[in-house]
Amino acid sequence: MNTEKKVQTTSQRWIGYLGYRKELEVMDCTIRDGGLMNSSRFEDKIVRAVYDACGDANIDYMEIGYKNSKEIYSVDKFGAWRFCAEDDVNRIIGDNKRNVKIAVMADAEKCEYKTDIIEKSQSPIDVIRVATYIHQIPLALDMIKDATDKGYETTVNLMAVSTVREAELDEGLEMLADSDVGTIYLVDSFGSLYCEQIRYMMNKYIKIAGMAGKRIGIHAHNNLQLAFANTVEAINSGANLVDGTLAGLGRGAGNCPLEMLVGFLHNPKYRMRPLLECVEKHIEPLRKQLGWGFDYPYMMTGFLNNHPRSAMEYNENPEKRGKIVDFYDNIMR
Amino acid sequence: MNTEKKVQTTSQRWIGYLGYRKELEVMDCTIRDGGLMNSSRFEDKIVRAVYDACGDANIDYMEIGYKNSKEIYSVDKFGAWRFCAEDDVNRIIGDNKRNVKIAVMADAEKCEYKTDIIEKSQSPIDVIRVATYIHQIPLALDMIKDATDKGYETTVNLMAVSTVREAELDEGLEMLADSDVGTIYLVDSFGSLYCEQIRYMMNKYIKIAGMAGKRIGIHAHNNLQLAFANTVEAINSGANLVDGTLAGLGRGAGNCPLEMLVGFLHNPKYRMRPLLECVEKHIEPLRKQLGWGFDYPYMMTGFLNNHPRSAMEYNENPEKRGKIVDFYDNIMR
Repeated sequence: MNTEKKVQTTSQRWIGYLGYRKELEVMDCTIRDGGLMNSSRFEDKIVRAVYDACGDANIDYMEIGYKNSKEIYSVDKFGAWRFCAEDDVNRIIGDNKRNVKIAVMADAEKCEYKTDIIEKSQSPIDVIRVATYIHQIPLALDMIKDATDKGYETTVNLMAVSTVREAELDEGLEMLADSDVGTIYLVDSFGSLYCEQIRYMMNKYIKIAGMAGKRIGIHAHNNLQLAFANTVEAINSGANLVDGTLAGLGRGAGNCPLEMLVGFLHNPKYRMRPLLECVEKHIEPLRKQLGWGFDYPYMMTGFLNNHPRSAMEYNENPEKRGKIVDFYDNIMR
Repeated sequence: MNTEKKVQTTSQRWIGYLGYRKELEVMDCTIRDGGLMNSSRFEDKIVRAVYDACGDANIDYMEIGYKNSKEIYSVDKFGAWRFCAEDDVNRIIGDNKRNVKIAVMADAEKCEYKTDIIEKSQSPIDVIRVATYIHQIPLALDMIKDATDKGYETTVNLMAVSTVREAELDEGLEMLADSDVGTIYLVDSFGSLYCEQIRYMMNKYIKIAGMAGKRIGIHAHNNLQLAFANTVEAINSGANLVDGTLAGLGRGAGNCPLEMLVGFLHNPKYRMRPLLECVEKHIEPLRKQLGWGFDYPYMMTGFLNNHPRSAMEYNENPEKRGKIVDFYDNIMR
């Protein structure tokens, strides 16, 4: 049933109903993106459960948190996975190392990358994911070079692309295509892009960066209930590194559910059952406390192409949560 | 900002990011599809609130329930909206008639259409929606003729199309295209079609039935979190009658949320706020009791192209609900 189809990394051919691209890889972002809902304060047992689930399901990468500056993020307020010290990562892996590459996100202007990112040979971390807004690209390029020189695989997440002027996006993509970065991500931070817009954007990323040899990735949010649909669309448009999170855990409306992604992909190496086990035992029990997932305020910020900040504040306030008409009147004012 | 684009009913041109097709109309199915979660036992105040919300939001049609046989569906077990007697419909409309066409669903083999559907001139109902499986098409054609002769507008919902063999689908569509029916619906009953498959199907429906002058409709389910995405895809492929329900209320994983649909459409006649008011005040308060919406068992029946029956039984059993690995093991056995 499952037949491997050889296509180029930069191919825009769709993978069919039953086929798959062997070179397409999957990244779990549960702890990193979910950390935006609990200040990265996950217990070790949760982080280890996600790591083991990724190992058992043969997920290629696990993004375990941020490499953020302790001067900007207080260690009193934020948990270990906002900083990802090597000792903390090693404690999770223990003597149970799985075939899962460990990634961390390094935010431009929020990371002391020159000192806090150490030589790859001394670290259990495999991949540095540089997160940048369009105006920070020169800094991001320096961070990419730094991480590459230290021996890491790199990706770059160009955030909030739905708000970027087209001429600047073209220029930014050209600059990134000319760097040492391995993968350039299309990131729908506000969850406001429709499938047609994902296709349009992917064609641009492929044309400018894919043709220059870069792998293109996709990271989607669920404000308009389109995270899964947009991820599938990006795959069919040529994305070969795709992000998901268990139960969609992530900021606001959350992300593309990893277990759904594995349901769509037909590469038989991926397994859904270990992911469902982790979701049932460790992730769904967090839902009531962390409160991620589709909700009307996130829908409205998505339609308006706004940061979900206002919707998150609303949903975190027990006196306001559920008063969707009030939120509508405020945001449309 | 909103510029009307004149395109043919059968056009496959996409409507752009800001434009709209004036001839595209919207049907609310909240009470009809939601009735599958509570045996159609909605209080009058809920039905009236949905009717008023549709009126205020300028939704074109409201499907208020089923015209089902009282010999098959006991009046002890099922509420008024399983039968839609004219008196019941008139009681909702009262002296507050809105510019919303009233539709009812008539299931093939479950409706005494010859007697229970009366002359249009005697009824507040405007549209008969004939629901048929592929093998019931000859009967559906008789029902369409009966309703047409009595003076009704008609649609036909060809259900569970994801399970129909292609040669039979082609033949069925040709038979329907040759009938008096006004609109032929693409219905993803099991919520198992991807956007690409919706596009493929829509192209077929347009080619066989659209070119013969039929309007094509879309009715999507949310098992794979694709109800909204698939509805948008169908619109961009030429669908001109599109179904939604408030808060996605509907069988199992539910439907395309009506308020999201209005957020996507750019026809300024539609208004989101009255829909949100009804959702907040009348529909969301039902969620805990009725329990519709995306959940993992629905996802699994969607991936397997199965009827959601087994998932609904699971979710209705308090001892089983949430045990998703157990459900997975059972369904994959």
